[in-house]
Amino acid sequence: MRDVVVIGVGLTKIGEHWDKSLRDLFTEAALKAIQDAEISLNDIEAMFVSNMSSGYLQGQEHLGSLMATWLGIPGVAACKVEAACGSGGVAFHLGYLAVASGMYDCVLVGGVEKMTDAITSDVTTALIMADDQEYVASIGSTFVGLNALVYRAYMHKYNAKQEDIALFSVHCHKYALNNPYAQFRRAITLEDVLKSPIIADPIHLLESAPIGDGAAAVILSSLEFAKKLKKEVLVKVEASTVATDTLSLFDREDLTTLRATRIAAEKAYKMAKIEPKDIDVMEVHDAFSILGVIHLEDLGFAKKGEGWKLVKEGEIEVDGKIPTNLFGGLKARGHPVGATGVYQIVEIVWQLRGEAGKSQVDGAEIGLAQSVGGVGGTVAINILRRVR
Amino acid sequence: MRDVVVIGVGLTKIGEHWDKSLRDLFTEAALKAIQDAEISLNDIEAMFVSNMSSGYLQGQEHLGSLMATWLGIPGVAACKVEAACGSGGVAFHLGYLAVASGMYDCVLVGGVEKMTDAITSDVTTALIMADDQEYVASIGSTFVGLNALVYRAYMHKYNAKQEDIALFSVHCHKYALNNPYAQFRRAITLEDVLKSPIIADPIHLLESAPIGDGAAAVILSSLEFAKKLKKEVLVKVEASTVATDTLSLFDREDLTTLRATRIAAEKAYKMAKIEPKDIDVMEVHDAFSILGVIHLEDLGFAKKGEGWKLVKEGEIEVDGKIPTNLFGGLKARGHPVGATGVYQIVEIVWQLRGEAGKSQVDGAEIGLAQSVGGVGGTVAINILRRVR
Repeated sequence: MRDVVVIGVGLTKIGEHWDKSLRDLFTEAALKAIQDAEISLNDIEAMFVSNMSSGYLQGQEHLGSLMATWLGIPGVAACKVEAACGSGGVAFHLGYLAVASGMYDCVLVGGVEKMTDAITSDVTTALIMADDQEYVASIGSTFVGLNALVYRAYMHKYNAKQEDIALFSVHCHKYALNNPYAQFRRAITLEDVLKSPIIADPIHLLESAPIGDGAAAVILSSLEFAKKLKKEVLVKVEASTVATDTLSLFDREDLTTLRATRIAAEKAYKMAKIEPKDIDVMEVHDAFSILGVIHLEDLGFAKKGEGWKLVKEGEIEVDGKIPTNLFGGLKARGHPVGATGVYQIVEIVWQLRGEAGKSQVDGAEIGLAQSVGGVGGTVAINILRRVR
Repeated sequence: MRDVVVIGVGLTKIGEHWDKSLRDLFTEAALKAIQDAEISLNDIEAMFVSNMSSGYLQGQEHLGSLMATWLGIPGVAACKVEAACGSGGVAFHLGYLAVASGMYDCVLVGGVEKMTDAITSDVTTALIMADDQEYVASIGSTFVGLNALVYRAYMHKYNAKQEDIALFSVHCHKYALNNPYAQFRRAITLEDVLKSPIIADPIHLLESAPIGDGAAAVILSSLEFAKKLKKEVLVKVEASTVATDTLSLFDREDLTTLRATRIAAEKAYKMAKIEPKDIDVMEVHDAFSILGVIHLEDLGFAKKGEGWKLVKEGEIEVDGKIPTNLFGGLKARGHPVGATGVYQIVEIVWQLRGEAGKSQVDGAEIGLAQSVGGVGGTVAINILRRVR
């Protein structure tokens, strides 16, 4: 397999973009990434557009051709990639394979989602499509409801306290302050979280990722292609893996672990020839505070039942053992579902290039991004390394 | 890039499967393909599920994890791939890249679509999502209406006659008689076509692909993996390309040619180091009779404006110069949109293995499948060759 590098990143602020269509958001992010890469539009040979619900919410499929058209490069290979909320991380994996295979020298991976100007009940309906329509959604389950089951099971099994788990949300909001692209740039306290309304017992509103509109894009190329660009820093894809688990919780042996994270992470660490301790910075898929905690464990940074301790003890802070979600995570940066996995890659690239501002982890060399579809039905792990 | 071969195929009959869910159809086709490949379920490392409208029509996304779960192999990498009606051909391309890259030795590419037990107006709405929602669908255009524009433009530009173009449908029905998996196994006459109702002037009902439910799957592997299976015949992927064009007709210089076909085909012929005359058998995406005719031209088998002559002169018959759509094509085999591109691959594999029964092209060695999204917004070309 050929070496693959990330040579450009671009993104939009996440928010309520009622004045912008899917194509407007996507092309804004894509053009920024192309500009950042210092390549021309015509260097792009293939595009992977990650999105979950454009068909249901906007009445628009065929995003590959649509976005190629609006970027002004019809002719390129293109398609839409969907793996629920994990679409972005999976699309990055496909972009990686496309370049690693030797078929394409330069590809664009872009995620886009618009959620705020749809009817709210429609968004709830759209999100539960990440789980099983016939056995789960059909009985009235909501996506937040499923995560509430996980939360309860975790607290029960490990005798963990909500005031500890909820700290994950406080952490994310603190770091969103440093991120001009974040949806919610304001700090919150633990008291704020615990006083906020319960949306599915025991999940408080401020423990849940919001809905939002946004797009992010990255340019991947072969190492040879990138060398011609004479970049100061190159960011190499050291590992890229995807794993699935049973789609629904009723099929799981243990509700408190995401088996897909463990499978994908094990493969990724092996592929990158590293261990969790070698990771300098990471972005995890904290759709809910409890998920953030569980990810810390499943990725190998804490024993099961003890992920919250890392948060409480400051170990996921910018100067902690494993700096995590330093741009706000899903909770505060925002979560335009199909785009989120690409936002994470952009953020890791900023870290490895030393462009992370107040969120910069000193000397960060290796970063990991974890993107999750559904309640762990799909997980993508991408590990990037600064190579010069 | 590594050599990639197709080692197994499976499919369901296309029809009104009101008793079967997306997962039932998909697993039926996938298990047949696995059995045909003589591998075990656990050999599958990654899955690409092609589908267009499961979110809108069935309220179900995240088909990668869903199908991995129902096949009993959660853990594998998986995602859904969408490029409108061309999803199947594009998913095959991604499966090809996945193996060619060296990352995966054995992958499953499966397409599935259910259309007949949705409300009819919903299917019309679902299909126009292949074109531009904001500039085309929003003014009331239907997918068949757009193809009617192409038909009129073609007849006008080339002074072609409908009774010649409509022969494409007659041809497809004739060969569907040989295909036990076809939706419509009955012959029709030119008179039948021209007497059938007009659904969008000038397109007659019998010039349009029907809607249907179905699934098809193929197993791709590295050549090394396949050699261990000691197959009598191996079918190699000689070329696999995808190209886009502007999404909508209003952006096209010429309505009577699909530029994406020409780009993808040119690349594919170059990749396979062949010319059109080397193709022994092919499957083209005849969503409407006029499209079948246009594809013959754009793929290099006739001058522009003269594709219908090939049909009229018997040159696309089983013993003609370029045997085409010998299992009924979209018109009579059927067109479960996201699955159709995979059906085509199965049919080409049958030909190259000598398993095509009454539709067998004598000594067929090289076959081509063309899969189209929208009115040519995306085209995938896959060329297969019998290698022993």
